[in-house]
Amino acid sequence: MAKQSRKELIIREAAIIFKQKGYSATSMRELAEKVGIEAASLYNHIRSKDEILEEICFSVAHEYLSFITEIEEANQSHSEKLAHLIETHVKLMIERPNEVSVANNDWKNLSEPKKKLYKEVRKGYENRIANILTKGMQTGEFKQINVSVALFTLLSSLRWIELWYKPNREISPEELQADLTTFLVNGLKK
Amino acid sequence: MAKQSRKELIIREAAIIFKQKGYSATSMRELAEKVGIEAASLYNHIRSKDEILEEICFSVAHEYLSFITEIEEANQSHSEKLAHLIETHVKLMIERPNEVSVANNDWKNLSEPKKKLYKEVRKGYENRIANILTKGMQTGEFKQINVSVALFTLLSSLRWIELWYKPNREISPEELQADLTTFLVNGLKK
Repeated sequence: MAKQSRKELIIREAAIIFKQKGYSATSMRELAEKVGIEAASLYNHIRSKDEILEEICFSVAHEYLSFITEIEEANQSHSEKLAHLIETHVKLMIERPNEVSVANNDWKNLSEPKKKLYKEVRKGYENRIANILTKGMQTGEFKQINVSVALFTLLSSLRWIELWYKPNREISPEELQADLTTFLVNGLKK
Repeated sequence: MAKQSRKELIIREAAIIFKQKGYSATSMRELAEKVGIEAASLYNHIRSKDEILEEICFSVAHEYLSFITEIEEANQSHSEKLAHLIETHVKLMIERPNEVSVANNDWKNLSEPKKKLYKEVRKGYENRIANILTKGMQTGEFKQINVSVALFTLLSSLRWIELWYKPNREISPEELQADLTTFLVNGLKK
């Protein structure tokens, strides 16, 4: 296996085990066992547990950032942009559930200065969504409510899907996305 | 100070310190210092850290349960019941922020069989809200969406206010409550 793809495999397995056991409780030895290589060999691919967490958090952040750029540039109404945002959050959570969950919950374990950087990136992302909400209110497409209330209600709804959305609830990703859009976009629309 | 009110003081201080430091990281010795009594005297009022957590979690749960009974019995439309529910969540979070936060985050640290009981009580509470949503859909007052999506979107929005609602945002409790009602109740209404 090429060095790059071995590294990707390590990160993928790490996200699974971090999600199950928690980042702090997972040792590099356990991770090596999971990947099926010697602990010593692990260090040929990755410098530290810290580096793995960085890779996970920033790769998820990078995806959100490219989505929001796409949404900003699209020639759509603000309601459509919001629906598009909900779609991308659901899609990312379905496609990369472990990475999204680790980035959501374990970014606090990043070491400085990466933790500070991560918080800035997240703040920037939030500001760009707030901007869509503000513009939608200015154009009269959305109701006039406090932008922070709108922003964090939206983000709380999207972020915590991972806590309750389980296969045994028998809700398809398409139904989830459609119902969230109905509930949240219509909640803001005038 | 009477024995009962000393116990109440201990629980109130415990909620503050649990929220700040985390339940697991807090020792009975630190709690005694905070309250200003000898660690040994603490045990005259309370058997264990475990008992304090139980008191906090079940007292918050009890408040939610008495609210939902009141809401069920009120002669109101389903939209009004939902607005009432939002009001009570905001009110409880403003009045007892530490207890609500500890119950939200640290119930996982309850020991059995209390943990099992707490989960059952919470499930019962969720079912009663789901029931209001279902009835509102059946009468045509609410849009037809998956009840679990509606329920958990609503609860995620309400539960995680504590993560972002800070005095420096300059949003009054009344504005928070009004805007959440506008966003969420209108999101469900036909």
